[in-house]
Amino acid sequence: MEFFTIINIGGTIAFAVSGTLAGIRKQLDIFGLSVIAFVTSIGGGTIRDVLIGHFPVRWLLDSSVILLIIGIAVLTILFKNHIEKLDKTLTLFDSLGLGFFTLRGIQEGLAIDLDLMACIILGTITACFGGVIRDTFLNEIPTLFKKEIYATACIIGGLLYFLLRKIGLPTELVETLTVMSIVGIRLFAVKKNISLPKIK
Amino acid sequence: MEFFTIINIGGTIAFAVSGTLAGIRKQLDIFGLSVIAFVTSIGGGTIRDVLIGHFPVRWLLDSSVILLIIGIAVLTILFKNHIEKLDKTLTLFDSLGLGFFTLRGIQEGLAIDLDLMACIILGTITACFGGVIRDTFLNEIPTLFKKEIYATACIIGGLLYFLLRKIGLPTELVETLTVMSIVGIRLFAVKKNISLPKIK
Amino acid sequence: MEFFTIINIGGTIAFAVSGTLAGIRKQLDIFGLSVIAFVTSIGGGTIRDVLIGHFPVRWLLDSSVILLIIGIAVLTILFKNHIEKLDKTLTLFDSLGLGFFTLRGIQEGLAIDLDLMACIILGTITACFGGVIRDTFLNEIPTLFKKEIYATACIIGGLLYFLLRKIGLPTELVETLTVMSIVGIRLFAVKKNISLPKIK
Repeated sequence: MEFFTIINIGGTIAFAVSGTLAGIRKQLDIFGLSVIAFVTSIGGGTIRDVLIGHFPVRWLLDSSVILLIIGIAVLTILFKNHIEKLDKTLTLFDSLGLGFFTLRGIQEGLAIDLDLMACIILGTITACFGGVIRDTFLNEIPTLFKKEIYATACIIGGLLYFLLRKIGLPTELVETLTVMSIVGIRLFAVKKNISLPKIK
Repeated sequence: MEFFTIINIGGTIAFAVSGTLAGIRKQLDIFGLSVIAFVTSIGGGTIRDVLIGHFPVRWLLDSSVILLIIGIAVLTILFKNHIEKLDKTLTLFDSLGLGFFTLRGIQEGLAIDLDLMACIILGTITACFGGVIRDTFLNEIPTLFKKEIYATACIIGGLLYFLLRKIGLPTELVETLTVMSIVGIRLFAVKKNISLPKIK
Repeated sequence: MEFFTIINIGGTIAFAVSGTLAGIRKQLDIFGLSVIAFVTSIGGGTIRDVLIGHFPVRWLLDSSVILLIIGIAVLTILFKNHIEKLDKTLTLFDSLGLGFFTLRGIQEGLAIDLDLMACIILGTITACFGGVIRDTFLNEIPTLFKKEIYATACIIGGLLYFLLRKIGLPTELVETLTVMSIVGIRLFAVKKNISLPKIK
């Protein structure tokens, strides 16, 4: 299996686990947990597909992703006490998903000739807005808007992507460095507990 | 008028009434109540149309549905004390709407060659996600994710649809049995007060 | 610069300021404030574009709008104490934006041959639903559904548009009177503190 495919699946799994755990805290039933796992994983990509006009949105054509996410939701419910101990592994996969999904969004934007800013926004939406839908459904102000370096990592990674591309590095190197920078910034922010400033 | 058309209108009315009553409890004004009635009725179908890429979304081309829903919102406001006594009638129409809208969503999926799982998800979204938008706008965690057998009825009905189709029953019989099974499961769950289990 | 372009920019700015100020009250960080400014400004037009099927949605092709909104968010954060004193100027621009965005939505509906009711709904969505997304993200029941004459002004203005068009006034006069009527109704309602009735 291709390296990027593995990361993609890892990211999808991490997002689905995060959605399911958030739903359990809000006492959802099994159906609700599956939906939350689902929108957390594929919500960002769905919004991106809608904004650029790519229909049917991709997951409708990909039953394996649907099954994977429902399976992960069920496994998370069954083994939730054990999964919470996997904190560090989940953070790693979540960061990898963040990097990969950002890259994916940028590439989708480039494929229809959007400019730098639109591409970086699409990358950030792909990576982060599944979590925004999750929090909105769970009746909370999206964490993304309140704390942590999360979208910021996507934006910096996106800027780096266009910089490295401009100076003429080969595509694969540009992509790898982009994903690595996003993962690195995110893991560093988690480790050091860094957030963006709030406005008083 | 065709049998299915009558059910469709009955479902639309029941959903509009449920939206209006929920909005009254949250002290919305007349405009807000009309919007909530509207999104509860046509929200699920709108999300489905967007996901599969059917534009303009259908209700924009159908003024009679728009007028019907606004009319129902006004009538519900005027006669709300009487309408609450119609509890059982509303539950019946709501269940019929659930069945019919699920069938409609499945058919839309089949029309663009989606597979079983995508079709059942589209059916469930068509039938249930108007209520999800309603609850999100009213600042509550969607009931759909927390209790009652509601989406579950749509999913079971959807599976039955594909099973009956596979064994070669005539289309009309398949459709009728699908709607009946969803209505039956839903009414049984309401009567017995059955919910999906929660995760502690 | 064309008169309507100036109003359009004024409306975008007023909406972005209103979003940023609402976000500051909810203690969002800088990224969150930019997103809220953004969805308040372009959310209504985005929903309209999606409903009618215009892709990619317009702001993805218009970097100047993206930059303008982010710039306004930053300026609002830096000068927020001064901006709150600009209350009356903001209300004026907000009302102008309301009028212009409604007109824009109606025109988009006419361009694909939608009927009167669908066009007025699209105008109202274009003008008002950025604020609905803002409030939903900020975990509140949308103000639009609860108080004030806001959408009502758009609906009356929309009806006037079709009336004046029917009696054969020249297009520019119809458009100007429509925008003026919406601005007038809105400013009058703010001044007199008029709301729609609530249902008890």
